Amino acid sequence: MAKPHIVVLGGGFAGIEFCKELEDCPADITLIDRQNHHLFQPLLYQVASAGLAAPEIAHPIRSIFSKQQNVDVLMDEVSSIDLDNKTVHIKEGGSLAYDYLVIGLGVKTGYFGNDQWAKYAPGLKSLDDATKIRRHILFAFEKAEKATDTRERDRLMTSVVIGGGPTGVELAGAFAEIARHVLKSDFRNIDTSTAKIYLVEAAPRLLTMYDEKLSNYTEKKLTSLGVTVKVNAPVQSISEGKVELGDEVIEAENIIWAAGVEAPALTRCLGVETDPGGRIIVDGDLSIPGHPEAFAVGDIAHCIDQSGKRVPGLCPAAIQMGKHAAKVIEADINHPGSGNYPVRKQFRYFDKGSMATIGRSAAVAESAGMKFDGFIAWLMWLFIHLLFLVGFRNKIAVLIQWFYAYVRYRRGARIITGMG
Amino acid sequence: MAKPHIVVLGGGFAGIEFCKELEDCPADITLIDRQNHHLFQPLLYQVASAGLAAPEIAHPIRSIFSKQQNVDVLMDEVSSIDLDNKTVHIKEGGSLAYDYLVIGLGVKTGYFGNDQWAKYAPGLKSLDDATKIRRHILFAFEKAEKATDTRERDRLMTSVVIGGGPTGVELAGAFAEIARHVLKSDFRNIDTSTAKIYLVEAAPRLLTMYDEKLSNYTEKKLTSLGVTVKVNAPVQSISEGKVELGDEVIEAENIIWAAGVEAPALTRCLGVETDPGGRIIVDGDLSIPGHPEAFAVGDIAHCIDQSGKRVPGLCPAAIQMGKHAAKVIEADINHPGSGNYPVRKQFRYFDKGSMATIGRSAAVAESAGMKFDGFIAWLMWLFIHLLFLVGFRNKIAVLIQWFYAYVRYRRGARIITGMG
Repeated sequence: MAKPHIVVLGGGFAGIEFCKELEDCPADITLIDRQNHHLFQPLLYQVASAGLAAPEIAHPIRSIFSKQQNVDVLMDEVSSIDLDNKTVHIKEGGSLAYDYLVIGLGVKTGYFGNDQWAKYAPGLKSLDDATKIRRHILFAFEKAEKATDTRERDRLMTSVVIGGGPTGVELAGAFAEIARHVLKSDFRNIDTSTAKIYLVEAAPRLLTMYDEKLSNYTEKKLTSLGVTVKVNAPVQSISEGKVELGDEVIEAENIIWAAGVEAPALTRCLGVETDPGGRIIVDGDLSIPGHPEAFAVGDIAHCIDQSGKRVPGLCPAAIQMGKHAAKVIEADINHPGSGNYPVRKQFRYFDKGSMATIGRSAAVAESAGMKFDGFIAWLMWLFIHLLFLVGFRNKIAVLIQWFYAYVRYRRGARIITGMG
Repeated sequence: MAKPHIVVLGGGFAGIEFCKELEDCPADITLIDRQNHHLFQPLLYQVASAGLAAPEIAHPIRSIFSKQQNVDVLMDEVSSIDLDNKTVHIKEGGSLAYDYLVIGLGVKTGYFGNDQWAKYAPGLKSLDDATKIRRHILFAFEKAEKATDTRERDRLMTSVVIGGGPTGVELAGAFAEIARHVLKSDFRNIDTSTAKIYLVEAAPRLLTMYDEKLSNYTEKKLTSLGVTVKVNAPVQSISEGKVELGDEVIEAENIIWAAGVEAPALTRCLGVETDPGGRIIVDGDLSIPGHPEAFAVGDIAHCIDQSGKRVPGLCPAAIQMGKHAAKVIEADINHPGSGNYPVRKQFRYFDKGSMATIGRSAAVAESAGMKFDGFIAWLMWLFIHLLFLVGFRNKIAVLIQWFYAYVRYRRGARIITGMG
């Protein structure tokens, strides 16, 4: 009997974990990603803020599976999925028939229907996004140094981060650190410590998924770093170098969107139910209703788990979902009498906690009902992120960069590339 | 009395050394570079061959001079130089008058009048060049993995490096290592160890500036690494994916030009004598004939030193020239009675030796009449390159990458970015 063919879309946390879990499974797995690397998304903001080099948070997908012979990696882009005919169409390589499908394509920056803002306020989802933001913010200081008009100079030294979730908080904190400390004595005509960094959030507080105490700590800490935090401040419109918030208009050279994500457009063409963000609504076993051989895992899945709670769009959830889908499929494959599926295990998200870092030696964390802030939370953050970083080389490289940044207040990746 | 204004063009080895040397000089120095970073050119081939990340061999120029108050860094591009009116015109910032000028703009990839080849055979002079080459060669293997036509697959897995100088030797060795070792078990449909790497050189041997014994060693070593070395093979023409050498045509996806450099075009508009490569012919004190207040240093200068020998286009020479120009100008400034220059010291190049690495634990070196090859030369190469790398952070980061590459045969920066 031919081995079942499993097609996995996306080499993010869910897809990678899925494949790893099936190491000994008698199946042919094809993992498709349009990038050649798995990206450690939680540290992407550090590449954007010149703390780390791009290769330090990325790992070649092929290299992860170089010794796992049942995984075949294909660098290509999915153009459409035909669930009824069990076929995936890809941009360059024609189409692939599957016995099982695992969709782990993740989410992309979403503008809540205002896609015209993308041009003025880029998001942060890929390494190219990150190097673009880094180039833009470093180059803004270079332009400010040369500017003769005071107002223009102020505008060039103003950044607005939209969205008070973990990414927004982390970016705003890092930008403040760059301006107040890292670049402090580098310029002769401007005082970078007067740079303005705004963090704007539509909700009444930052980090809404955390306890209010931690939100308050975060706001206080960011303010002390020099960030102007604006809550209850929904964005009305964004245009070239301008953000409109109710009655206030902020002129800024750097505008970064960290306020929302949405599923890639192809989920809307699957003929299955999606949530308003385009996420695929899955059954309790993570399969797509009506298609027991097709699964959605990670951020692209809208899942209510066994406990009745919505599974959050976080790395640990993606990892757990990838592992769960693998176990379900492995049980199917090993079940005698192909064609009828055994009773499947339902997914249950195990919440180990969540954390966000604010700046040098400050973070917030919540785990098992306990709340942490300050230095201890930062140490936890550091330890966990190093631990989960893929590849020994990356762990060591990142540790050294952080140690260096900590003692010297330096950011080594302040290099402007790709100016064209 | 106003301090003299010294304008320095280019933040390469010569320009940086010049400014450092004038740390205590009562002068206002403006250092102009179109990049925000000083680049450690000798290791650029390692970024191109996925061994190092771009920020690891670059250092922000501002950060080098953050504490040296007499240096003002300007990120801009020089559009023209008016030697008679002592003025430099820059692209964005208008023009700058100077009392002293130091031109250290370096050289760019040169095609000996065949500029149409640039499109098909990019050179390696900047970080953007390096990431472009890296992206292209890694992506070629991805395309080969999907190719169904055998001939096309072979073409995709073929690289031609043109030019048997140190850069060509280093690139060819690194590409061979990637194909034979690093990527070996990453692919399922192709055997990367069958990839073909050609190194072609018009002269009768590689590394013509070295002793013939070392050239022979290099050729033997490269051949054992799997490189096809072709000497006496001048390139007739280059077109899309094709290199024509006399009666042979090599079809290759990756064609890299490391065969020549030339001075930037603006040297031809200075109204002073240049050599066929556009380098400015300087006097023995490194000043430009007829313009005692203007100097050319580094690769852009054509200099016959006090010993009557042509100064080579190497980093140590650039550093020594930068330092020499600084001493001459400092003596001028400190000389009583401005307007008439004191008798100037003539430049003498001190040849400490030169070296090129071939691959893992093999290199060639020549110093003070002694010749080294193999592991000992490689250790010397490693030690000296680490020593001269700018910035403590970079030294440590690079050391770790090399250690990792050495023990694990891995190249950590195998990340394809900038696909657009």
